[in-house]
Amino acid sequence: MINSEMYRLGSAPSSIRELFEYGRKLKKEIGDENVFDFSLGNPSTPPPQAVLSEMERILTESEPCALHGYSSAQGDLAARKAIAEDLSSRFGAKISPDKIYMTCGAAASLCITVRALVSGENNEFIVQAPFFPEYRVFTENNGGKLLVADADTENFELNIPAIEKLINERTQGIIINSPNNPSGVIYSERSLNELASLLTEKSKEYGHPIYIISDEPYRELTYGKRVPYIPDIYPDTVICYSYSKSLSLPGERIGYIALPNGVSDIDELYFAICGAGRSLGYVCAPTFMQKIVASCTGQVSDLTVYRKNRDNLYAALTVMGYSCVVPDGAFYLFVKAPGGDAVKFSEKAKELGLLLVPGDPFGCPGYLRVSYCVSEETVRRSLPAFGRAIDLFQ
Amino acid sequence: MINSEMYRLGSAPSSIRELFEYGRKLKKEIGDENVFDFSLGNPSTPPPQAVLSEMERILTESEPCALHGYSSAQGDLAARKAIAEDLSSRFGAKISPDKIYMTCGAAASLCITVRALVSGENNEFIVQAPFFPEYRVFTENNGGKLLVADADTENFELNIPAIEKLINERTQGIIINSPNNPSGVIYSERSLNELASLLTEKSKEYGHPIYIISDEPYRELTYGKRVPYIPDIYPDTVICYSYSKSLSLPGERIGYIALPNGVSDIDELYFAICGAGRSLGYVCAPTFMQKIVASCTGQVSDLTVYRKNRDNLYAALTVMGYSCVVPDGAFYLFVKAPGGDAVKFSEKAKELGLLLVPGDPFGCPGYLRVSYCVSEETVRRSLPAFGRAIDLFQ
Repeated sequence: MINSEMYRLGSAPSSIRELFEYGRKLKKEIGDENVFDFSLGNPSTPPPQAVLSEMERILTESEPCALHGYSSAQGDLAARKAIAEDLSSRFGAKISPDKIYMTCGAAASLCITVRALVSGENNEFIVQAPFFPEYRVFTENNGGKLLVADADTENFELNIPAIEKLINERTQGIIINSPNNPSGVIYSERSLNELASLLTEKSKEYGHPIYIISDEPYRELTYGKRVPYIPDIYPDTVICYSYSKSLSLPGERIGYIALPNGVSDIDELYFAICGAGRSLGYVCAPTFMQKIVASCTGQVSDLTVYRKNRDNLYAALTVMGYSCVVPDGAFYLFVKAPGGDAVKFSEKAKELGLLLVPGDPFGCPGYLRVSYCVSEETVRRSLPAFGRAIDLFQ
Repeated sequence: MINSEMYRLGSAPSSIRELFEYGRKLKKEIGDENVFDFSLGNPSTPPPQAVLSEMERILTESEPCALHGYSSAQGDLAARKAIAEDLSSRFGAKISPDKIYMTCGAAASLCITVRALVSGENNEFIVQAPFFPEYRVFTENNGGKLLVADADTENFELNIPAIEKLINERTQGIIINSPNNPSGVIYSERSLNELASLLTEKSKEYGHPIYIISDEPYRELTYGKRVPYIPDIYPDTVICYSYSKSLSLPGERIGYIALPNGVSDIDELYFAICGAGRSLGYVCAPTFMQKIVASCTGQVSDLTVYRKNRDNLYAALTVMGYSCVVPDGAFYLFVKAPGGDAVKFSEKAKELGLLLVPGDPFGCPGYLRVSYCVSEETVRRSLPAFGRAIDLFQ
């Protein structure tokens, strides 16, 4: 008399978490310095100094009952105003603070958005492979069904023909994530334009909007290339944001959902988002962190270490014979598994203390995710293991 | 093509929130000093000094990446150990840290627990009236059906015959809340023993455990009377806890679920709780607050103002002719509505600047909830309005 699906989800942790836990044990056995853990997307650069200073200032200067009391369910008005202003100044975005809903991070943003959009029994959401595997958990446990569009393994761009094949009258939205976890690719304006044309046409054909659900935790983690602002390209875009990466605050669970002006049924959808948050037990986003957002949204952690790791790893791995696209954002390399079998390669690599996540749960077998949000030293010291690993498969 | 149930939940805020928002507007019109807002359960006493000091110390002394990084999904081990030790020292509780799951507050604890327990289409949960109305939202949107046992309006104790009538083979649990919101009553050991006998018998009859889901945010908010430790009385008890009231941190969203030794199917249920948390988008509880819990669990905010407000309001209102049970805990009085119609009385009271929540959504029409987590001055200054209000109905 216990929910068997919940039992399954709880007893079978994600392969990423599993590898991470394995690494923790291995470190105890053979020493921290002999384990090269590229499993988790846990930021390795501290929050911006402004965030740390604001934390101290706010704690010292605020009246504690007001600071730690409930905010409204939609969130602190100052935080919502700051977000709207920041998005306006950086992207020319037109978003009313009244159409922003503060959340406990991106996972919450996505669960709430899916639940708000699910209007019937068989509503479907499409995701472009490779994709963050928890999207399946968030979608399929909140009333939706997830369909995966095959990856474009040449460029890891949007695969428009593959997406088109999956669209039908039950399609409610497509989840996209750019810069992408796990490929590091920033979808080009060209491919986003093609997606927009396709969705516009299909929305018309089926008589209801097909929303883009844009999961943007890596929006600010880029190495030179511009990230297109998606609502400019396709108005029916729901932005799901998290400060986990940009402010290096993943444990604090703070993010938001934003509905830009121009979203279809914007008032109804916003109310449904408020209702979905309520129904999932999200009373309000953590209030201390909402105050941090009010003064620090738009700031970005120092990305120097990520950039160096990206450059060093990409250069060293390609010289060794590994193959991967240049990652323009996020903190992942998505490497073709030497020998073709990523699970097999990952197992062998584990024996060398090298923890790499196979791409299979990302909808992209044959590839390995390398999370380079680690120290520069870990990257440097890991290179011999990468070398030995590829030698085993050549 | 938007979820109509979510739209309904989001567009029709709870009557409590509605009254609170009305109060905010009214304050702007007629001045703060002329509005006596007894609508919300938002703590009016600050967090314990030890909590405030620990916040500063932890922020100053911790390495920021570790402090604000992800914890494991079940939560920081130090926090879980501290909770287990505190419950052991205060109640002789036997709970393993590995059977504690840190949550984003009581609402999350309840949604997760219901979802973990729902094993079929028609699973039912019983609640004793009067009850916190959001229980219905949390239960019915996470796969359960909520059945309400009629109130014992003499003493606001557990109404065992009413509960018995509702139990059947589909019953998965009964949600109880003591000290109770809205009545302030602490269920007696005697009535809990009767409930335990009933549930033991019915669990045997139907061949599966019927769990008590004990929602305990007010456990430490008492005025002399002891709160029985429920797992001592009935082993199949799931504890849902929140620090919102005991540490005056409602906006920070921190609490836990604990499965004491002796809970049936404890391993399966714990995994299902982990899975339910994952499926609802709760990646981990806020990590800074988890550190606070690790060093401050068991502390309690200064309750002096609540005690004074309780004493003063109870004394004054009963002298005026209002009728209510003595509240032994929490920070609510549950007053019989003069004239019998609580909605009508609440409407008239609003005209006097007096904001009282009708008991109807609590499953107890004809009563009014008075949240006395306000300043002493608000209580003192509100008394003439209480006097005028009762005069209108006599």
